[in-house]
Amino acid sequence: MAPSPFADLYAEVQNFYARQMQSMDQRDFVAFAGTFTEDGEFSHTPGQLARGRADIIAELREFHRRFDGDPVVRRHWFGMTCLEPLDGQSWQATYYAYTVNTRPGAAAPTIGPSCLVTDVLVRTAAGLLNHSRYVRQDRLLLER
Amino acid sequence: MAPSPFADLYAEVQNFYARQMQSMDQRDFVAFAGTFTEDGEFSHTPGQLARGRADIIAELREFHRRFDGDPVVRRHWFGMTCLEPLDGQSWQATYYAYTVNTRPGAAAPTIGPSCLVTDVLVRTAAGLLNHSRYVRQDRLLLER
Amino acid sequence: MAPSPFADLYAEVQNFYARQMQSMDQRDFVAFAGTFTEDGEFSHTPGQLARGRADIIAELREFHRRFDGDPVVRRHWFGMTCLEPLDGQSWQATYYAYTVNTRPGAAAPTIGPSCLVTDVLVRTAAGLLNHSRYVRQDRLLLER
Repeated sequence: MAPSPFADLYAEVQNFYARQMQSMDQRDFVAFAGTFTEDGEFSHTPGQLARGRADIIAELREFHRRFDGDPVVRRHWFGMTCLEPLDGQSWQATYYAYTVNTRPGAAAPTIGPSCLVTDVLVRTAAGLLNHSRYVRQDRLLLER
Repeated sequence: MAPSPFADLYAEVQNFYARQMQSMDQRDFVAFAGTFTEDGEFSHTPGQLARGRADIIAELREFHRRFDGDPVVRRHWFGMTCLEPLDGQSWQATYYAYTVNTRPGAAAPTIGPSCLVTDVLVRTAAGLLNHSRYVRQDRLLLER
Repeated sequence: MAPSPFADLYAEVQNFYARQMQSMDQRDFVAFAGTFTEDGEFSHTPGQLARGRADIIAELREFHRRFDGDPVVRRHWFGMTCLEPLDGQSWQATYYAYTVNTRPGAAAPTIGPSCLVTDVLVRTAAGLLNHSRYVRQDRLLLER
């Protein structure tokens, strides 16, 4: 049986997301931004859009200030990933995401906002990269 | 190294589940039922069994009436999927599942019932389809 | 397009973890220990280390005594798995984990401790096995 390149891509994307988000959760925003193309777009809130690696780093540093007085270990989980080809070198990924948050003294971790995420991934000379990421919290669907 | 068709299958199943359950979570029950064979079986509660696409659609419409006065965004997560061949064209999948539920005004999402799910998947001319799905909530294991 | 052995490995590891942890959650510690090499190491707490299958079984039996008067269905979820080759026959896996715990009468499952896990996996004549597993709870990162 001839193998499909889809299996290669699917495994590569899962491993890519794991490495990318482990960087985020270690607050290595430079490494995270390096998983985007030079002109990559990152939006985690409607109306907010960071474009390019420097902007992404700045946005994440600003965002994480909310945790300055709130010690927490955050773990991003992605799942239920659906990949669709856009052309031979790029794909749309649609998946679910949330964070698992551990705080001192809490009896159990809490689940952070549940989100639907849409990425455009592109194959480049530097490997697979995010061309864009749009994160939309589920709670916003209830406020429409 | 010769590739195994297992990798192809595993990626295909994960992508299939993602698309299938994104349909469910959008309450597109017709699309969901279309991921089952014509004589497909779907049981989410002991003693309940929908057989065939029309029955599956009817069962899901009935089930979701409980959310008529309860606005909620539900996201089904599947994980820890174990695939075992039944014959050359069908496989048993055994995996864990729960829902992440977002409600207006709630501080955080809640986790829905944790379940053990057993599927029979079959390759058809129309692609991979569910021949059956049996969902069993973990809480029922405590009541035996 | 030539397939990469990485896709084969990634699917195999995911299926291996599913089967391994379904054994654990059924409290089949003999089956769980059998997924480790004869000299396999398993540590779930700093300062604790079980070495070899007999020790792993003994450690798990001791650990699970805490549930003697606490009926619970536990489900281990692994996700965001990053695989890195160590040599041609072994790999490091770094991933996130937690348990979903269902107890009688509870309105919803609870999430168990969030952990970062590091495995060394090795290919043997008996298939893929754990050479080691180190589990570290996120809450310990907050106490340093």
